[in-house]
Amino acid sequence: MAQGTEHTIKAFDDDIGQLRGLISEMGGRAEAALTAAIEALVKRDNETASRVVIEDKKIDALETEVDKLAVRVIALRAPMADDLREVVAALKIAGVVERIGDYAKSIAKRVPLFESRRMIEPISLIPAMARVATEMVHDVLDAFAARDAEGALRVIERDREVDDFYNSIFRTLVTFMMENPKTIGEAAHLLFIAKNIERIGDHATNVAEMVYFAATGHYLADRERGDNPADPNEG
Amino acid sequence: MAQGTEHTIKAFDDDIGQLRGLISEMGGRAEAALTAAIEALVKRDNETASRVVIEDKKIDALETEVDKLAVRVIALRAPMADDLREVVAALKIAGVVERIGDYAKSIAKRVPLFESRRMIEPISLIPAMARVATEMVHDVLDAFAARDAEGALRVIERDREVDDFYNSIFRTLVTFMMENPKTIGEAAHLLFIAKNIERIGDHATNVAEMVYFAATGHYLADRERGDNPADPNEG
Repeated sequence: MAQGTEHTIKAFDDDIGQLRGLISEMGGRAEAALTAAIEALVKRDNETASRVVIEDKKIDALETEVDKLAVRVIALRAPMADDLREVVAALKIAGVVERIGDYAKSIAKRVPLFESRRMIEPISLIPAMARVATEMVHDVLDAFAARDAEGALRVIERDREVDDFYNSIFRTLVTFMMENPKTIGEAAHLLFIAKNIERIGDHATNVAEMVYFAATGHYLADRERGDNPADPNEG
Repeated sequence: MAQGTEHTIKAFDDDIGQLRGLISEMGGRAEAALTAAIEALVKRDNETASRVVIEDKKIDALETEVDKLAVRVIALRAPMADDLREVVAALKIAGVVERIGDYAKSIAKRVPLFESRRMIEPISLIPAMARVATEMVHDVLDAFAARDAEGALRVIERDREVDDFYNSIFRTLVTFMMENPKTIGEAAHLLFIAKNIERIGDHATNVAEMVYFAATGHYLADRERGDNPADPNEG
């Protein structure tokens, strides 16, 4: 715990490398969880779905590891300015990636709730939407690893694609429910699944904002964040 | 930026007091936003709803202030062990309170989407549900201010109440939609509103877990967190 001892650039770089490694692992797991959850949904594969739920605990455990390591790095190395900003960004990014994992878990938990053997029709847009969200998660973690502010901005731009998918799925499902009242329960679960994917896009965008901040020291202005007060997509 | 200068207990306590003050203000605003959003929903008051949306920016700005102050405190005071844990908890709690504000904003954004003059019937449970969630947010911030681990545990216990409300509202709305296909669009928005409130309960629970950790240095075990793998409520 003695402060200042071993306070070399090399030791700090090793620590940061370890933090980044843990976050990459979290991100890889969150990405895989989302892909598996959507596959389980499409194939009605309850076994894969329950594996996604169980494996989410590993993402949670990795977040706890990031928290502990970040606190240790701050205590031992007393990083300043840019370095400190990077450790704090790692802490916050781990929190958001953990939530992305939670959304994948939520999708997986709904898989066994579909009773009919065949999935109702409007599902077809969901895998395409999930693909964009998965790519955003993948790309934002690449941007984080490479301290790539431009890459982070590109992720933010893609969030509109996910929102457009969501709006289209919402309208399709509401129409479908009106025409097929018996499917309302299942369609409601699909609505929430689409919403979960939309939230994953939002969270990838949040991470991108943090990566941008960690890389440049500047916060993105509201204008650049594409925050639209009339848009009820959030939440 | 010179480290170690002015590194007195008094200065650190002042900083922590300021951090806590900012988080209390965030929490008070998030609580008020939720109350106002539900009132706007019940009274179909678009003006109040749009004020909630606009005022959310203040919560976001407060989070940025917390982040900056926390980084400054760590850099200037180089806190160790318990003190450092407290600063890191403040950082994470600010992030979650910001999200609680986002959910209130999401509810407010849906208010103008209800076209019919009279709100559909199953809305009656929503204000009662919101009241419990608001109390959880209030109580968890009290627990944070008082470093009250027992108070935090009581908040965690109440999350089941919110979940029960949610399940009951979900079933009621699905039945209502089947019987009144014309209301499906509006009922779907109510489903999301109920979901947003349920998420606020989850986030108050997350904050309670962080308060418990900051106060005791121990993480709550999964068992105590009431994590139920079969429960699709999350997300």
